[in-house]
Amino acid sequence: MEEQVELIGKAFVNHYYQLFDNDRLALASLYQPSSMLSFEGQKILGVNDISAKLNDLPFDQCKHVISTIDSQPSSFAGGIVVFVSGSLQLPGEEHLLRFSQMFHLIPEQQGGLFVQNDIFRLNYG
Amino acid sequence: MEEQVELIGKAFVNHYYQLFDNDRLALASLYQPSSMLSFEGQKILGVNDISAKLNDLPFDQCKHVISTIDSQPSSFAGGIVVFVSGSLQLPGEEHLLRFSQMFHLIPEQQGGLFVQNDIFRLNYG
Repeated sequence: MEEQVELIGKAFVNHYYQLFDNDRLALASLYQPSSMLSFEGQKILGVNDISAKLNDLPFDQCKHVISTIDSQPSSFAGGIVVFVSGSLQLPGEEHLLRFSQMFHLIPEQQGGLFVQNDIFRLNYG
Repeated sequence: MEEQVELIGKAFVNHYYQLFDNDRLALASLYQPSSMLSFEGQKILGVNDISAKLNDLPFDQCKHVISTIDSQPSSFAGGIVVFVSGSLQLPGEEHLLRFSQMFHLIPEQQGGLFVQNDIFRLNYG
């Protein structure tokens, strides 16, 4: 169980940033109308507005490099909480931006997991 | 509702680090037997082992300085997710250690909130 949660968390994180870096429009498939995103303190509700926000970020290309992934079962919601730290590389920028992000994943009726809670912060040094 | 979640998150965070910095043994009151802590990748289950871990850290005194607090309702668990970034000052150390931490707070039967999920990471620059 414990190990399975770790594996699911890692698979989700790899999938999420792979889409973010290569097919950002497809991230919409991971959110639902109830989903919430806090992006650098800005609150956005629902898959449509979240997808718009992620696709309107002021860079077209980016590359996430993951440093750590911590996952735990979210016992009272039947899901998983995932905590990620890593770096974001933007085109033409030499230095990496450190970030931390958490996801609260909830089971879908169809059997997968969707992002109910998403909180993203850059780590200023 | 939205605003209330922010207020509860901030009140919890202030209370948590106030206890951590001044009365670390009392942190046990915020956890339950079901609680989980991931501390720099080490997994610890249950209030007793979590309390032991927090009180056995290799520093007696510390001071947390909070930079950001983001809170969202955890709809499917009836609780709140809280994401914190900040700095940790250790005695005799000039430079601050940056950290990020997330809490998943769940309602207690008695009416308060307890920490079900707690994930802590230092942010290496």
